[in-house]
Amino acid sequence: VTESGAGASASAAASAVAAGAGVGDGSTLDVLVPDDLGMAALAGHPALRPLRYRLGDAPDERQRAARALVVRHAEVPTALAFMAGLPALEFVQTLSAGYEQWVGRLPAGVRLSNVSGVHGLAVAELALGLLIAHYRDLTGYAEDQRAGRWGRRAPGTLAGKHVAILGAGDIGQRLAAMLAPFGGTTTLVGRTARAGVISMPEFLAGPIGSAEVVVLALPVTDATRGLADAAFLARMRDGALLVNVGRGPLVDTAALIAEASTGRIGALLDVTDPEPLPDHHPLWSTPGVTVVPHVGGYVPDTWERAWQTAIRRLEAFAAGDPPRDLAAG
Amino acid sequence: VTESGAGASASAAASAVAAGAGVGDGSTLDVLVPDDLGMAALAGHPALRPLRYRLGDAPDERQRAARALVVRHAEVPTALAFMAGLPALEFVQTLSAGYEQWVGRLPAGVRLSNVSGVHGLAVAELALGLLIAHYRDLTGYAEDQRAGRWGRRAPGTLAGKHVAILGAGDIGQRLAAMLAPFGGTTTLVGRTARAGVISMPEFLAGPIGSAEVVVLALPVTDATRGLADAAFLARMRDGALLVNVGRGPLVDTAALIAEASTGRIGALLDVTDPEPLPDHHPLWSTPGVTVVPHVGGYVPDTWERAWQTAIRRLEAFAAGDPPRDLAAG
Repeated sequence: VTESGAGASASAAASAVAAGAGVGDGSTLDVLVPDDLGMAALAGHPALRPLRYRLGDAPDERQRAARALVVRHAEVPTALAFMAGLPALEFVQTLSAGYEQWVGRLPAGVRLSNVSGVHGLAVAELALGLLIAHYRDLTGYAEDQRAGRWGRRAPGTLAGKHVAILGAGDIGQRLAAMLAPFGGTTTLVGRTARAGVISMPEFLAGPIGSAEVVVLALPVTDATRGLADAAFLARMRDGALLVNVGRGPLVDTAALIAEASTGRIGALLDVTDPEPLPDHHPLWSTPGVTVVPHVGGYVPDTWERAWQTAIRRLEAFAAGDPPRDLAAG
Repeated sequence: VTESGAGASASAAASAVAAGAGVGDGSTLDVLVPDDLGMAALAGHPALRPLRYRLGDAPDERQRAARALVVRHAEVPTALAFMAGLPALEFVQTLSAGYEQWVGRLPAGVRLSNVSGVHGLAVAELALGLLIAHYRDLTGYAEDQRAGRWGRRAPGTLAGKHVAILGAGDIGQRLAAMLAPFGGTTTLVGRTARAGVISMPEFLAGPIGSAEVVVLALPVTDATRGLADAAFLARMRDGALLVNVGRGPLVDTAALIAEASTGRIGALLDVTDPEPLPDHHPLWSTPGVTVVPHVGGYVPDTWERAWQTAIRRLEAFAAGDPPRDLAAG
């Protein structure tokens, strides 16, 4: 996976397709579209012509000539099988931010573009809400309300806390901005150190032991899978919180259950491994662990907003400008 | 109530006390202190000498000569009776932000200073947490977790909402700063229009009908008591939320129960009228109404932080500089 480039093979493929299928004149790009929302979003677009497809069906002749395909997150294995019948395919546009399922599996010369930026605000909102709800014990007060009981207490506050955010992308940066008014310290951790961002080795050398909150806002890659294992969790300070709004496999679930069960640390999880978390899985009832069902980016109009971003990326591809967030097969 | 001045009579009193009690040399100010936390906070202070008092007891001779008194919020009537036995009193320092209980009731020539700024961050944090928890249905997910049940849904988001904040003081400004990263519109409403703040008549002429959230972050005065009455609530837009983190009597409780019971608006209440809300009061179970037991400013170390601010105000008074947030009797 690279974030830019992959130029030569894709360009060669584009030229071949342009010659063979009669597109590439800069005026119209056929786009294979998986849902009615996308058909509506592209209707009447001057440069993009939507073609509805269904993953179970074999592509027809016109679909086989299409250079661009839009896919949903949950459809990866079926979509890969569908792609095998698309010889002209150059560009795959997802409607989600995570793209780890595609790594190493795209046909040669096919680029991938995600919609990073669409979900970040919603995911950061959920992370902040879970943090405040935890520190201020909003769940406890909800129980008191159901019982019709006025019980004042001062459980805690997010204000002044040291929060380390692993992942300095859209989610991480938005969460850092949301935390600023709370007067604490925010440490952003990225793959490489840069202004305002420290590296993972730097994080592991210090802040992991001092941060009161460690937020995982990373994709799953070979480098991050199982990152929060028993050793990682053991190094977190007493009373610290692990927040996972990235992907479930970033955390070793058994290790988290073991560490949280001692009461030493807590966790707020929007994503789990396995996922969906089966009914009555022990993680549901581990003390100090809050689980919500992967709803970080799941707010009203999510797909409408994802399509708006996807259209901008498709327009850029149609115009010959490589979109950001590109991964190549 | 004025926010500065009250100079002449206080100065005269200060001179008289200085002559009579041997203080006023600029080196030490006797301060009447209501709790052990304050005794500890003032211990060893070079300019402030703490004298512990108990409200039920009559002041002794040394206490009667003191010019400064620190009081807690909940103790107003008893404290006023205690003050009647303090002929040298010039300066009352509260440990809370609200001071409406003192208006018009202080002995002549006595100034009041509050600790505005100590609670604002905690109250704004609670307001934001209640808002995110409401829109993202964190209470619903907590119920699902107790049942060990994975149930995805997209209930809503705070992002992009129009929030009107009535009260442009410390709480209102902090909440506005917290809302900025959510990409919506924030309207601050104050007693008088100024840069970034509209007046109450301007709010009532427009935003009351368009804002998706109306936050009350006001003190109770003759001008604000019962502000959110039936007519006010009826003018809020369908689906809007009323958030009260000010004082319970800002809202007509019966009118709110009536309006919320129709399902047309919801409410998030940190303060209620009456307060404490009695067990099984109908407000506890009004549909769409969340109640927490006046814990906005109630976080760990609240009193420690209040004392730190109170000490700065007392130091300023001892040095002859009138503190900010001053109200005079």
